[in-house]
Amino acid sequence: MSESATPRTVGELGEFALIDRMNAGRVQAAGVLLGPGDDAALVAAPDGRFVVTTDMLVQGRHFRLDWSSPRDIGRKAIAQNAADVVAMGAVPTAFVVALGCPADTPLELIDGLADGLWEEAGRAGGSIAGGDLVRSPELVLSITAFGDLRGRAPVTRSGARAGDTIAVAGRLGWSAAGLAVLAAGADIERFTEVVAAHRVPQPPYASVLEFLHGDPASGAGSGPNVPHALTDISDGLLADLGHIASASGVRIDLDSSALRDPVLEPIARALDADAAQWILAGGEEHAFAAAWPAEVSPPPGWHAVGRVLAGHGVTVDGVVRPGSGGWESFGGADSAAAAEPR
Amino acid sequence: MSESATPRTVGELGEFALIDRMNAGRVQAAGVLLGPGDDAALVAAPDGRFVVTTDMLVQGRHFRLDWSSPRDIGRKAIAQNAADVVAMGAVPTAFVVALGCPADTPLELIDGLADGLWEEAGRAGGSIAGGDLVRSPELVLSITAFGDLRGRAPVTRSGARAGDTIAVAGRLGWSAAGLAVLAAGADIERFTEVVAAHRVPQPPYASVLEFLHGDPASGAGSGPNVPHALTDISDGLLADLGHIASASGVRIDLDSSALRDPVLEPIARALDADAAQWILAGGEEHAFAAAWPAEVSPPPGWHAVGRVLAGHGVTVDGVVRPGSGGWESFGGADSAAAAEPR
Repeated sequence: MSESATPRTVGELGEFALIDRMNAGRVQAAGVLLGPGDDAALVAAPDGRFVVTTDMLVQGRHFRLDWSSPRDIGRKAIAQNAADVVAMGAVPTAFVVALGCPADTPLELIDGLADGLWEEAGRAGGSIAGGDLVRSPELVLSITAFGDLRGRAPVTRSGARAGDTIAVAGRLGWSAAGLAVLAAGADIERFTEVVAAHRVPQPPYASVLEFLHGDPASGAGSGPNVPHALTDISDGLLADLGHIASASGVRIDLDSSALRDPVLEPIARALDADAAQWILAGGEEHAFAAAWPAEVSPPPGWHAVGRVLAGHGVTVDGVVRPGSGGWESFGGADSAAAAEPR
Repeated sequence: MSESATPRTVGELGEFALIDRMNAGRVQAAGVLLGPGDDAALVAAPDGRFVVTTDMLVQGRHFRLDWSSPRDIGRKAIAQNAADVVAMGAVPTAFVVALGCPADTPLELIDGLADGLWEEAGRAGGSIAGGDLVRSPELVLSITAFGDLRGRAPVTRSGARAGDTIAVAGRLGWSAAGLAVLAAGADIERFTEVVAAHRVPQPPYASVLEFLHGDPASGAGSGPNVPHALTDISDGLLADLGHIASASGVRIDLDSSALRDPVLEPIARALDADAAQWILAGGEEHAFAAAWPAEVSPPPGWHAVGRVLAGHGVTVDGVVRPGSGGWESFGGADSAAAAEPR
């Protein structure tokens, strides 16, 4: 093949060769019994059940190629799905990825995306068991993630009871702050930590999985040291706790003093923004929030931010906070589209 | 709410209310242990493993709203995924659906799509266990399908052996003929059967599942009455048999006289087209093709179309057929885009 004929785009390489390229050198997780290459994959479900969740990410709506590298986008796509699996109390095992892109997409973009997908899948404890590759007008990624409960009951949103402690593992508001920095066209170098948090969420998987499944011999994962309800923060703290409050038939009251973050306050001042709004309503953080029985001290990595009361809805210091709705797919403002190129 | 405020579009109704609307009145299959409404769903996998496949369908590329009803599109999206599950020898159990659409999408379109998704899921033996709903510039559907092997080994593409009989269950070329009728702007009323076959493929799920899992007491599903290799016809008969030939390290020779279809020949004459090309290279049919041991008579619903020989590749009457490549995602011609609006 002459130098000029080296394929540079998805269309030049073609579907089947690109699938081979995306899978070359990858090592499947132990639970993937049959990987790509047949009509379907085969994944182990030792529990006799499997947890499944799916999320679609659309270019311009959920990510922008001028704000995030392909590798970042791949990591983020897997992380937000893995966080949903862990938020049920399950250990991630495998992922499948459907990818749509234009024929003139550079191969380097797909290479970076695939590296990010595999990197985060490995970090979460699984691998990419299969997928689909189609032509579409813009980049669209649809991820489906699987997890195994290892014999435990799923930890749903509906078990919170009055008297429980609400605690959080992971960061809050960092992704929203990073988005605000990017949208304002501010100097990214001054705010690298929050911009990185927006580009690649880092769900603290181990903060959930260690106490649920850590060491069967020591009794971890049994007894009262399990939350009554658990979710990940994808739409915003108030919105996601609202789902727990609604599903459990309770009220949740947050303590604003427990939610301050000294990292965010100077950034908010620099951008003339409200750090509390980032913390309470910022989505895409993929921290975890749980309702813990009153007699239990939340394990390391968790800190208390509120409590469960009789009633309904979510309050902050006893008051309903106005204008703090979370992410809504058909709302006007969103992650990437919040600042369309001007 | 006043009459004028009745929501008519996806954006007016909003994400969460639309998800409720799509799920209202639906009954989950027995294997869906926890359906929509939490961070993830929970699906039974009694086998201790599950089969999984995913396919993305993009408006203008895989379907056209002026050629297919929303209900047809929903059925087709599920059917092509369920066929992949069955082509592994597994019984479909559940599906998850990620859906992207513009905010101004009429609610009637989503209602029809959801009805089609549920209808075909039920026909295949499962239900829609969960999903995602996002905004995107055009309609895009990403389906992930699951199946249970009921203790059997998966029937892959790699087990064909010289001496096997190649047999097919289901129709060949009808979907391609229907596409040709639509693309030519021909009188649809004259050719309703093939147009319907293009709009909604009808994989003969039972033709596979009955002999594999039909009646354990009678011995069905055991012994030699199992094919060495199995696939569904999604990219075209020659292309998909090519995957079996390649994975099994064999040559497959087809008998053209066994592939004629008296329904297609007059349609081909009317359109000045080649019925054999539809049969050999038409995709989206989702018939099943299998390599059966020579000593086995393929069960009812299957008919022999060729045989497995030593060598490689696929031939027709002993000869390589020119210009009969199958579907390629980044190729120029395709299902819906084959006739872009002129």
